[in-house]
Amino acid sequence: MVMRIVDLRSDTVTRPTDAMREAMASAEVDDDVLGYDPTARRLEEEMAKIMGKEAALFVPSGTMGNLICVMVHCDVRGSEVILGDTCHIHVYENGGISTIGGVHPKTIKNEEDGTMDLVAIEGAIRDPKGSTFYPSTRLICLENTHANSGGRCLSAEYTDRVGEIAKRHGLKLHIDGARIFNASVALGVSVHRLVKAADSVSVCLSKGLGAPIGSVIVGSQSFIEKAKTLRKTLGGGMRQIGVLCAAALVALQENLPKLQSDHKKTKLLAEGLNKMKGIRVNVEAMETNMIFMDMEDGSRLTAEKLRKSLTEHGILVIPENSSRIRMVIHHQITTSDVHYTLSCLQQAVQTIQEPCQN
Amino acid sequence: MVMRIVDLRSDTVTRPTDAMREAMASAEVDDDVLGYDPTARRLEEEMAKIMGKEAALFVPSGTMGNLICVMVHCDVRGSEVILGDTCHIHVYENGGISTIGGVHPKTIKNEEDGTMDLVAIEGAIRDPKGSTFYPSTRLICLENTHANSGGRCLSAEYTDRVGEIAKRHGLKLHIDGARIFNASVALGVSVHRLVKAADSVSVCLSKGLGAPIGSVIVGSQSFIEKAKTLRKTLGGGMRQIGVLCAAALVALQENLPKLQSDHKKTKLLAEGLNKMKGIRVNVEAMETNMIFMDMEDGSRLTAEKLRKSLTEHGILVIPENSSRIRMVIHHQITTSDVHYTLSCLQQAVQTIQEPCQN
Amino acid sequence: MVMRIVDLRSDTVTRPTDAMREAMASAEVDDDVLGYDPTARRLEEEMAKIMGKEAALFVPSGTMGNLICVMVHCDVRGSEVILGDTCHIHVYENGGISTIGGVHPKTIKNEEDGTMDLVAIEGAIRDPKGSTFYPSTRLICLENTHANSGGRCLSAEYTDRVGEIAKRHGLKLHIDGARIFNASVALGVSVHRLVKAADSVSVCLSKGLGAPIGSVIVGSQSFIEKAKTLRKTLGGGMRQIGVLCAAALVALQENLPKLQSDHKKTKLLAEGLNKMKGIRVNVEAMETNMIFMDMEDGSRLTAEKLRKSLTEHGILVIPENSSRIRMVIHHQITTSDVHYTLSCLQQAVQTIQEPCQN
Amino acid sequence: MVMRIVDLRSDTVTRPTDAMREAMASAEVDDDVLGYDPTARRLEEEMAKIMGKEAALFVPSGTMGNLICVMVHCDVRGSEVILGDTCHIHVYENGGISTIGGVHPKTIKNEEDGTMDLVAIEGAIRDPKGSTFYPSTRLICLENTHANSGGRCLSAEYTDRVGEIAKRHGLKLHIDGARIFNASVALGVSVHRLVKAADSVSVCLSKGLGAPIGSVIVGSQSFIEKAKTLRKTLGGGMRQIGVLCAAALVALQENLPKLQSDHKKTKLLAEGLNKMKGIRVNVEAMETNMIFMDMEDGSRLTAEKLRKSLTEHGILVIPENSSRIRMVIHHQITTSDVHYTLSCLQQAVQTIQEPCQN
Repeated sequence: MVMRIVDLRSDTVTRPTDAMREAMASAEVDDDVLGYDPTARRLEEEMAKIMGKEAALFVPSGTMGNLICVMVHCDVRGSEVILGDTCHIHVYENGGISTIGGVHPKTIKNEEDGTMDLVAIEGAIRDPKGSTFYPSTRLICLENTHANSGGRCLSAEYTDRVGEIAKRHGLKLHIDGARIFNASVALGVSVHRLVKAADSVSVCLSKGLGAPIGSVIVGSQSFIEKAKTLRKTLGGGMRQIGVLCAAALVALQENLPKLQSDHKKTKLLAEGLNKMKGIRVNVEAMETNMIFMDMEDGSRLTAEKLRKSLTEHGILVIPENSSRIRMVIHHQITTSDVHYTLSCLQQAVQTIQEPCQN
Repeated sequence: MVMRIVDLRSDTVTRPTDAMREAMASAEVDDDVLGYDPTARRLEEEMAKIMGKEAALFVPSGTMGNLICVMVHCDVRGSEVILGDTCHIHVYENGGISTIGGVHPKTIKNEEDGTMDLVAIEGAIRDPKGSTFYPSTRLICLENTHANSGGRCLSAEYTDRVGEIAKRHGLKLHIDGARIFNASVALGVSVHRLVKAADSVSVCLSKGLGAPIGSVIVGSQSFIEKAKTLRKTLGGGMRQIGVLCAAALVALQENLPKLQSDHKKTKLLAEGLNKMKGIRVNVEAMETNMIFMDMEDGSRLTAEKLRKSLTEHGILVIPENSSRIRMVIHHQITTSDVHYTLSCLQQAVQTIQEPCQN
Repeated sequence: MVMRIVDLRSDTVTRPTDAMREAMASAEVDDDVLGYDPTARRLEEEMAKIMGKEAALFVPSGTMGNLICVMVHCDVRGSEVILGDTCHIHVYENGGISTIGGVHPKTIKNEEDGTMDLVAIEGAIRDPKGSTFYPSTRLICLENTHANSGGRCLSAEYTDRVGEIAKRHGLKLHIDGARIFNASVALGVSVHRLVKAADSVSVCLSKGLGAPIGSVIVGSQSFIEKAKTLRKTLGGGMRQIGVLCAAALVALQENLPKLQSDHKKTKLLAEGLNKMKGIRVNVEAMETNMIFMDMEDGSRLTAEKLRKSLTEHGILVIPENSSRIRMVIHHQITTSDVHYTLSCLQQAVQTIQEPCQN
Repeated sequence: MVMRIVDLRSDTVTRPTDAMREAMASAEVDDDVLGYDPTARRLEEEMAKIMGKEAALFVPSGTMGNLICVMVHCDVRGSEVILGDTCHIHVYENGGISTIGGVHPKTIKNEEDGTMDLVAIEGAIRDPKGSTFYPSTRLICLENTHANSGGRCLSAEYTDRVGEIAKRHGLKLHIDGARIFNASVALGVSVHRLVKAADSVSVCLSKGLGAPIGSVIVGSQSFIEKAKTLRKTLGGGMRQIGVLCAAALVALQENLPKLQSDHKKTKLLAEGLNKMKGIRVNVEAMETNMIFMDMEDGSRLTAEKLRKSLTEHGILVIPENSSRIRMVIHHQITTSDVHYTLSCLQQAVQTIQEPCQN
């Protein structure tokens, strides 16, 4: 008998669907380093159109996508980037923008909703022409949805306002849009509109969209040309990438329509969790496909105890810290999986708390 | 009617075979960034065994493989690497080891056979403990086969001697083994033996082996652990890479045995070319799957004229310079393709030279 | 007639005294790049002794001192440093640790007294052995006195506690001690004691001490050896530096005893300023030789108006922002200068505010 | 009794003269980081005029001068510089252009006379607009005089031709003119003329000119503005540098006229050495103030034996390798010192060779 597995660690854990596998098997390909792979070209054109930008480039990962975008905007030595203190680029990408890119980060506090205070952003800008004492601010980065806030969405209006600040000071705006499609669905606003103010966006194909590998970055024609050179420098130039891009094209068609349903299941799970004794979930704030589940002080619950208990039932989660677990919903989590998770967790919570009920 | 295409630009242009496509479609996968993809694990174990090293890591490209290896060996700021002045790392990889890695290159002349003079190597070494005036030499790089010498093989004995120099001075030895399997087949020596002296090797899956995407680096367990972190930093950590590794596993089984035949076809083509008036090929030196075809002075032939003429017949080649064309044989070039190429080229040569024959 | 100049812009503006000039003129010197300048050696030995560390190195500036210390502690690629968000290294040194050193900064909020919360420091540490997602924390930086807090002193106890955190996690502790002598005098604690927990300290000779040029960094013998190589790489290796070190030796003897008096004059000035209508100075917080003078809301006073008015009387100051002026006292500011400044400023404040008094 | 010292290790070992010391003692100074030191300004204006460039900047060392110039010309990531394989920047400056600046060096063989073949230079240039495989060549560096060729001079004509290549390809030309004044005197051509084709030049004040500390870089106004920011980043911004610049102004007046005499003494020494049995000096090639003295094979002489013997007589030299010693003449070496050196060396040579004469 095979154990039932409910993998809630991330939306990066999905398996390619049959349609994706078939697409990979039949993809038209060419050497994308020597020239252009035709399927890659199709995907890049499609993504550029969706995002409303001139051009696009397939890259092996979201981390490389962000790294390339920051480094191209900050291609002159002595650059500074303004970004949120809990954003993915600053926290989870090995500090690559500094250690590889030599770009100096200036962090602004990320509010609970993933935004940064506009006054704080503007106050942090330093003369892009440089001075004797300061690096030159050249870029502002946003993340939409903002993962470390639990997948909160940045509105088009907020993004526009940041874009105006950037323009007023001659800076560029990059959006880490790893989950921009989730934001679009949750807000009911086209992706195109959400990133209107951005000079570049990186979008993940292998998160909610469920493709096996890859991200895409978009921007102006000249930006993407520079990005292509840097992709090669970093080692992200790959050969017959049509096999991957074919899967991504299927993902766009197949899974984009399912994000709405992912969000509904997320709400269902969040509400169920929030009813449990000793567990707190800010249901309102779970806008997309992520849940931060907190253990209340004095509840005997710990993230590690719960993780262990869930693992025994085939439910995989990642603790954020000693009293918080993150769960992420994706298209391969069914409503039945949600109920099963709630049931197993309810049992775990009771078992752990029983001693204090006697 | 579809035009006959004979793509001799590189051995990176092969299309995945049916067996590879089927393997991609049915590959067992997992998120290789969060943990380990099972198929990737299988490929890495297989490659580590073939190369006789403790561990292996799948990377998106040979360029990233080399970049990671150089940067891990030279992880302390102020490092210098000794490498050949025509080697791929120095010439074709965007100078990434300096511009991304901050490593200072010290080049030694590559001889016609791809080696560097042993006395010159030893003379170039600077105290790895550093001094006030010099960077610290920490690494020597070889390339086997050496592409810019036309695919010449470095012998196990030569490699061992370089390895001894490295050891004597506390340095590491990296081999860019993009085409190390070709060297192994041509020399009749196991890959294992060829890289015995190396601390790390990068091997391409998407050159002679014909897999669509990827390279593998091998080394000690601790080396590969550091490499894995750096792979993430550079953006080379990818999700369900089992789809690519499955194709590579097929490539190892399917195409490795075909390299011998590739080399025979290369000889056949080289000998045919060398008989043409105004064309010179050093047949002896064409040891593996590459040909450098030179146009003699005063022959009216130019690389560009020949390339253009060949292109009209669907034969794709890349000029190295105004009087040299490079051709690369791979498993999707048949003996018939070789004869077709010789016939088309003979015609082109005559047409171009006719005016001077009158 | 020569205008009276009272230069309160910084304690870096002092002119060398006659004794320093004479020392420069008679200094015993040698080529410090080829070997050791004897006077430099004397200064370095003296400073190492004062700071209680094994060895010392003369460097051209405090900025280079800090840069070298951070880069030596973080000599392995992929390093992160924890430091205060208003500290000099992060704010005023061009982002050099990232743009030159490739070190990733993780900032912690600097409290009003210049400290960082100990829990926040410990919470920010990431495994120095590295992980797939994070850079490796290798260093914590403190600044004593903390300039952007108005020259506040960090106590020996606080520093020790940060040092314990560092040790517990295998990290290093660097102190930007540009004005560590001011802290020592204000706290009545030896410099030796104040930096006991530090692995390295940089000290400015050209601030309160009044030497014309230079800083010194101190640390272990092996640390200083690495620092010497990096100093050469950065271009800080200089020839007959005995001429500068001779002046610094005089400064240590001549001006160190005057710091107490500088602090008294600072209090005198602060108290005088605080009595003026529309001006606020936190007199308690002015622990050493700096004053932050704030203009109250609705007072009609602005930093720029006051600066302009003061300049007309030969009093030089630097506005921090639109409603704050920084003043720094040094050994060439007399008590008479303080009274003159108070008098001129009182007049300026009245003139500016008069319209609203009618 | 004090031992007679003849220090031939380098022209960097000179002691400041009385006039320089007096100038230092009486120099008018200000804080050069906050604004401009008046004496620095005078020196910079003087040097800009001498070199025929718009602006100049005092820097702590020749190494920093070269590093700044290369980094400013190559301020965009992914840059390559063409330079000689034995030039000072490549060999003796810790690889800083790569390890600090992230600039990729492409070396060309330095001929015996310090030049690089013009065809080789032009052949090495890669498209400054970048490509997928190559870094962008942005700079060519020359060194005049070329130290590792024994102080050979590059003619104005040669320099012009390199400048034409640079212009034709949109590149910049930097001259490491550490000893450009020696070249000017030896060639009888103004420095102004010698560097006409250069976009930047670095000149050492502490070599032949005999000032205690510092170098100056010159270039266009906008170049020097960028250089000033980078000087601060590297930690080369210093406070009351007037004390150093005053000495340099004296050096220009006092020692510039003595270079001719330095060169004559060099010839005298070279000719004397060349007459000794077992010693070979290419007298013709000793164009300026350096001598490479080679020990003939089978002469029993070694650099180390001779160095040791000379040291016993207070004559200091630095071996280049096991059979070559370098000697450098400067204004504090008298004709009598030359005769003393020849006499001591003659004795040493005989003593060492005696055994084989029996």
